[in-house]
Amino acid sequence: MEAHAGSILLAIFAMFTAAKLLGLLAERWRVPTVIAELVAGILIGPEVLKLVAVQDWTTALAEVGAIILLFDVGLEQKLSSLVQVGKTALLVAVLGVVVPFFLGFGLLQLTQHSQIEAIFMGAAMVATSVGITARVLQDLGALRTVVATVILGAAVIDDILGMIVLAIVSSLSEGRVDWVEIGSVSALAVGFTIFVVLAGRKVVRRFAPRMARLTVGNPHFALALIICLGLSVLSQRIGMAAIIGAFLAGLVFSEEEFGPALKEKMHSVYEFLVPFFFVTMGMQMKLSVLGRGDILLLAALITVLAILGKLVGCGLGAYSLGWRGVIQVGVGMVPRGEVGIIVASIGLALHTISDEIYAVVIIMVLVTTLLAPPFLKLLFALPAPPPTPARPEPSPPPVPASADRP
Amino acid sequence: MEAHAGSILLAIFAMFTAAKLLGLLAERWRVPTVIAELVAGILIGPEVLKLVAVQDWTTALAEVGAIILLFDVGLEQKLSSLVQVGKTALLVAVLGVVVPFFLGFGLLQLTQHSQIEAIFMGAAMVATSVGITARVLQDLGALRTVVATVILGAAVIDDILGMIVLAIVSSLSEGRVDWVEIGSVSALAVGFTIFVVLAGRKVVRRFAPRMARLTVGNPHFALALIICLGLSVLSQRIGMAAIIGAFLAGLVFSEEEFGPALKEKMHSVYEFLVPFFFVTMGMQMKLSVLGRGDILLLAALITVLAILGKLVGCGLGAYSLGWRGVIQVGVGMVPRGEVGIIVASIGLALHTISDEIYAVVIIMVLVTTLLAPPFLKLLFALPAPPPTPARPEPSPPPVPASADRP
Repeated sequence: MEAHAGSILLAIFAMFTAAKLLGLLAERWRVPTVIAELVAGILIGPEVLKLVAVQDWTTALAEVGAIILLFDVGLEQKLSSLVQVGKTALLVAVLGVVVPFFLGFGLLQLTQHSQIEAIFMGAAMVATSVGITARVLQDLGALRTVVATVILGAAVIDDILGMIVLAIVSSLSEGRVDWVEIGSVSALAVGFTIFVVLAGRKVVRRFAPRMARLTVGNPHFALALIICLGLSVLSQRIGMAAIIGAFLAGLVFSEEEFGPALKEKMHSVYEFLVPFFFVTMGMQMKLSVLGRGDILLLAALITVLAILGKLVGCGLGAYSLGWRGVIQVGVGMVPRGEVGIIVASIGLALHTISDEIYAVVIIMVLVTTLLAPPFLKLLFALPAPPPTPARPEPSPPPVPASADRP
Repeated sequence: MEAHAGSILLAIFAMFTAAKLLGLLAERWRVPTVIAELVAGILIGPEVLKLVAVQDWTTALAEVGAIILLFDVGLEQKLSSLVQVGKTALLVAVLGVVVPFFLGFGLLQLTQHSQIEAIFMGAAMVATSVGITARVLQDLGALRTVVATVILGAAVIDDILGMIVLAIVSSLSEGRVDWVEIGSVSALAVGFTIFVVLAGRKVVRRFAPRMARLTVGNPHFALALIICLGLSVLSQRIGMAAIIGAFLAGLVFSEEEFGPALKEKMHSVYEFLVPFFFVTMGMQMKLSVLGRGDILLLAALITVLAILGKLVGCGLGAYSLGWRGVIQVGVGMVPRGEVGIIVASIGLALHTISDEIYAVVIIMVLVTTLLAPPFLKLLFALPAPPPTPARPEPSPPPVPASADRP
């Protein structure tokens, strides 16, 4: 506790309180809370209220927040159910990754940005925010429709593909694009992923029962955090983003029998620490770029492409669901979230993307996330043809635990 | 996420893992885990393995950990039951504060340390570690004995008196002792405390039901964290230690109907973040002082006085329990814990105590905490006179939730 501990504490108070108060408002206006936390960061950050600046310790808190976030995302996903969602979801997911990636990549190449910036932009446009999508569908009572199942399954696969893209992208920190390197990094990422998922599960199954015999409060929780932090460090060491290790750690624990208790405990840590990540991300946005016409134009173009990319890519993938399903799936996949921001923040930290491109990504995430819910509402509220009932059971079905998170 | 985020993450991993692995060993050897975490900090710190250095971000994490710790301590205590424990516990607590304080103060004055260092040493010798005491009594199945009730009640009052002493001490950062200032600070501390406990409860009771109507995951948890951080900032602003605000916030929430759910959630955050406080405290200990005979002599003397102070002070207070009770209560109150370390860490941060005195306090805390459990075991295992059954029910009674924490 240094002499300036007072200012750190005040900053922590300001960050958390701003996030939660704006979160309350967002809740009332039915806006995803991730938006509220980004806006909170912009507000209290160095360009508006000047309450908090980005420093070493905000970085450390944000890093821990991001790791808890991705661990939690991993915990919510089961490899086994991913396999079940079937070909349609896979097709939706893959096309929903490929089309936006090349749209973003292409636009930045055309507008004479560096190749690495173009790749980062493409990567940031890839992942659908499964939390936001699930939350909106839950509010509409439409979680059990065929379309919803496809959207959720595809969003999950999207997140994983986004992770792989991120793994590749985060290894490209030298400013030049080496396709051999991308190949070897992909192989390493895939190998690491498979190894962790297969061996990690065995390790956990061997150690967990031993730890359970101890009287310490929550041995599984401590073990999960150690493995989560350890895999984060490891994946960083082999050139991937730390959060990918955290995500894999979550996958490793997701199907253990003590999983539900673990999720419960991790959720508390999540509620406290994850806001620091998004608030810090908001704090890093340079508002001054909003005054520049060229940046706003680029942001508008990228946002349009981000929307079109998912509408076309995912729509194509969902052709078997009929026209209505195509549009519902396409719109449902539009909101970008955590992963897009994470990609951009890594690019910013590695100095491979500029403040301008970072701002463009944040704007794209904010707009796609804000736009999708009203359109989804409209599309699902209209009377529907038989195979895709728009208003199923009056009482909403059991909801995935992730649904109340941004 | 700066370029050095990797080293921050590695340090976080090292701190948490060292704390939990040594905690496991401690658990097996029936040593309080707080000891394990301090030793983990000494081991990975700048003087042994050199894995982590004390930096801004370790300070921030430790600060948050200390705040969560004290909020939790506050949550566990009910003002109403404090009133019930009666005169004996109060007498034990007060004498157990006064005698060690003046012993520590006196020795440092005699050995020509500054008056402010003497006061800090006295303050660090005051508070009994209620967690450690409760844990040992729980392990012995002796939590329902009269002696145990007195010890627990007195330890709780001790913590509160320790907080007040700490409030006074932390205001004395100018190196000189102004008794008028002490008086006004005490009045302010007492006034703030009473105001928060009375008004805080009303505020919570007004806002909590409104927040509960919102659909957000856990509005009470967010509210509790906001109030905890806010009162911490506030108590720091009026010249007290931040953690006193956190403790009072805990007291405010301790008797709310959503208290149990809140404790559950806070406990998860506790398990993740509090180790960073003790590990950081361990990291701050300068091992080189152990090579100096004069410091070791002072540490030995202070440790003996810390033990005698509680034995005599608390024993005197417990005279109504008979000889056996006097010794059991005296020994039960010997272990020092969190609060002693917090007092010393504040003194160190304010540069009002030297590295040597800090090391002396850490040694005193380690030794008193390690010594008490075996003696307690011995004292409670012997066949006992009727009014204080040493071995009560074979199945241990329901245990206070704090019992499984250091």
